[in-house]
Amino acid sequence: MGWSDVAGKPCDLEKGKSIRPSLCLFTCEALGGDVNRAVPAAVSLELIHNFSLIHDEIQDFDAIRHHRPTLWNVWGVPKALVAGNVMRVLAEKSMSYMDFENPSLIYHSSSIISEACLEMIEGQYMDISFEGETRINVDQYMEMISRKTGALLRSSVHLGAVIGSGNDEVGNLFRCIGAALGFMFQIRDDILGTWGESKATGKPVGADIRRRKNTLPIIHAREAKQGMYDKEISTLYSSEYLSEDETSRVLDILDDTKAMDYCQGLVENYAFQVHKGIKSAGFSEKSDTEFKELIDFLITRNY
Amino acid sequence: MGWSDVAGKPCDLEKGKSIRPSLCLFTCEALGGDVNRAVPAAVSLELIHNFSLIHDEIQDFDAIRHHRPTLWNVWGVPKALVAGNVMRVLAEKSMSYMDFENPSLIYHSSSIISEACLEMIEGQYMDISFEGETRINVDQYMEMISRKTGALLRSSVHLGAVIGSGNDEVGNLFRCIGAALGFMFQIRDDILGTWGESKATGKPVGADIRRRKNTLPIIHAREAKQGMYDKEISTLYSSEYLSEDETSRVLDILDDTKAMDYCQGLVENYAFQVHKGIKSAGFSEKSDTEFKELIDFLITRNY
Repeated sequence: MGWSDVAGKPCDLEKGKSIRPSLCLFTCEALGGDVNRAVPAAVSLELIHNFSLIHDEIQDFDAIRHHRPTLWNVWGVPKALVAGNVMRVLAEKSMSYMDFENPSLIYHSSSIISEACLEMIEGQYMDISFEGETRINVDQYMEMISRKTGALLRSSVHLGAVIGSGNDEVGNLFRCIGAALGFMFQIRDDILGTWGESKATGKPVGADIRRRKNTLPIIHAREAKQGMYDKEISTLYSSEYLSEDETSRVLDILDDTKAMDYCQGLVENYAFQVHKGIKSAGFSEKSDTEFKELIDFLITRNY
Repeated sequence: MGWSDVAGKPCDLEKGKSIRPSLCLFTCEALGGDVNRAVPAAVSLELIHNFSLIHDEIQDFDAIRHHRPTLWNVWGVPKALVAGNVMRVLAEKSMSYMDFENPSLIYHSSSIISEACLEMIEGQYMDISFEGETRINVDQYMEMISRKTGALLRSSVHLGAVIGSGNDEVGNLFRCIGAALGFMFQIRDDILGTWGESKATGKPVGADIRRRKNTLPIIHAREAKQGMYDKEISTLYSSEYLSEDETSRVLDILDDTKAMDYCQGLVENYAFQVHKGIKSAGFSEKSDTEFKELIDFLITRNY
């Protein structure tokens, strides 16, 4: 979870943003629910997120995250793999601490988490399958991220709403809000992976390009201008790692196809959908302001 | 699950033995329970077992199991890793198909599985930590296997009993029977890993020695005869892989310390405990005979 250093001592180094539990707890509270009741679900979400990060890092051979060595980098793959699995079981166990008068709510909440997990893993599988593929279009990409990162973010808001309101209709409204929020979040992540400053993101600049990732900016650039750059990007992406010069060339192509404007435009469009959804939820003025601040942070965040 | 070949086509090649679901269903039925009620738990157990095999194979770089290439060997590590994770989630999902009048039984059954999973992973962690260690004694080894393979086998019998009888006391009796059965099973596995025929086990002869595994025969041989072979085994085990000659030498040491008799003696002692437990359970004559046959198979099995 990033709470201790390499030697296992408690530390105050950079950790994750805890966005999923925050969204869950916030939504529950904003709908007038008792925030304590959402804690087991919030804990579960953060554990599942960390489980997926640990396994993702193994899959991608990522050695650094948040300026810190990743778990397999410190403990080796076998121990990191089982550590991820433990988190997954603890996530399940956390849900058993939900203590409601309403057992069907526990059951419903647990299914939301299981389904989100399944979708998330499906998304990871799609992502792996896309590697080295040159024919991924924007629609396929959106399908993939709606699962890989979208499912868990969506379920965070969905769970908070179900627990906070006890009402399935409200739950479904927030499921939709969560879906838009998930796209917003992931596309912003793609922007940061492409143009982000290393100091803020903990990743090297152009990190996603150097590793030939099929992110939205790249897929857009391939499709833009009647595909005039498609072949060149394929050629550049055919070597295992891109050199400094090659990375610069891809960044120039992204500039010429206005990939950043395209992506940030989508981010803002999804943010608009989130705001519209929230409006119909009838939050209190205080909750409304707080939620808007959270969305603003997610749209403009640099890490 | 081994149901299809490398090309994804259904096939009739060698699969696992399905011991865990068999134990669960058998125990449920033998106690007069409706076997259909135990099916979700039985499915869950087999999925968890396969999840753990797939991840174990990744950790150990095992390329072959049951004479067939392992999943990562066919699909690569990333996809095999997520395939294992999917099975874990499906196992959880399977439990949600339990359809009882008694919701506390569903809750209880799910906790038994979660706890078994946690213990199993803890055992995997201990096993990884033991690698290359020369100071593991028999007690530590038994602690490790009681978790790594024992927890899930124990929970198979435990779950079958809880679902079949609806009685916690009967459940606890079978938990104990399952614990003995787990030791019995794993020690027999160690025997097969050391002296088993490749044709039957799907592993090369002396496979565990060649890979310097700290199995019970080895730990016994180190401790036997006032530790006279301890140093020699350490030296032999200090190279990454053992040659044919080195493997033969270790087999000679195992002979001289009567390691096989020691291990098979323990197997039979645990079998005795299982039989004693079953006697107090008051099975019907038919169930009693069937269970004895199953135990006999597990004691004498060659694969």
